[in-house]
Amino acid sequence: MTYSDKNGISEHIQTVIDLAANNCQDNGGPFAALVVRDGKIIAEGLNRVTANGDPTAHAEIMAIRSACKVLGSFQLDGCELFSSCEPCPMCLGAIYWARPARVYFAAWHHQAALVGFDDEHIYNEINLAPELRTIPMHHVKSKRSNEPFERWKNMSDKTEY
Amino acid sequence: MTYSDKNGISEHIQTVIDLAANNCQDNGGPFAALVVRDGKIIAEGLNRVTANGDPTAHAEIMAIRSACKVLGSFQLDGCELFSSCEPCPMCLGAIYWARPARVYFAAWHHQAALVGFDDEHIYNEINLAPELRTIPMHHVKSKRSNEPFERWKNMSDKTEY
Repeated sequence: MTYSDKNGISEHIQTVIDLAANNCQDNGGPFAALVVRDGKIIAEGLNRVTANGDPTAHAEIMAIRSACKVLGSFQLDGCELFSSCEPCPMCLGAIYWARPARVYFAAWHHQAALVGFDDEHIYNEINLAPELRTIPMHHVKSKRSNEPFERWKNMSDKTEY
Repeated sequence: MTYSDKNGISEHIQTVIDLAANNCQDNGGPFAALVVRDGKIIAEGLNRVTANGDPTAHAEIMAIRSACKVLGSFQLDGCELFSSCEPCPMCLGAIYWARPARVYFAAWHHQAALVGFDDEHIYNEINLAPELRTIPMHHVKSKRSNEPFERWKNMSDKTEY
């Protein structure tokens, strides 16, 4: 049995592909995502980068934010994320912070690269030393760099995440 | 000359450390970020994950989104991003999509890990095959997976990004 045979997975994948394709006609990029819980869609996300003037408005980010609102939680316990394409590093990071149970995706990121969406470049950059990246990231020495973490550690009433 | 001696860098780093530390008292995590253009702060971002119920509300994401609104653009050309801590993979990805000129950060991510913010784990997961990650990511075979990209490729009036 492949994943596409299991309960509802094939259907949700078809839905997310349709949403991604149709989003092109609505000033969006060709990407969509869904958050599913107990087999039901609880949120959808569409790429709105240029429409909203927001480079973080990828489909998975939008779906995660929307699902968290629906659930009233900053965690997607027991949820599944469906994406029309393999997540980019930003969305992969967001998935780890949101902690759904698993992710299903349709296209490989190499397919997105062929039409100009180059997250392969970002994946390559991650493993370089910060100052050697094409967007250089410089560590600035400061004796005070740990102060925010000390403050956090000493708080008694914080919400951990 | 170290980075901390150059024009305004040390000052912006002190500012972002103060914002991060003070954010703990306001239901935020111990992180802050600034977007600077021509030496002037144009946007700030504070970690609001638990406050907003949004796992993507990291300081850098918030600062990028706010700066894009100020500039009316989805790109941060010629801007510098200051962060109280080395960016996590999600924020690193967002930085590549927003394309500021460079990034300056105060704390290393290992310092954040010591108080429970484990992005080291995410960095390790990125290099694993999708289905072997602690949040498994399954490729679902579909003959239609390339349809959104075909649609995108054939559009004549799209905004590339």
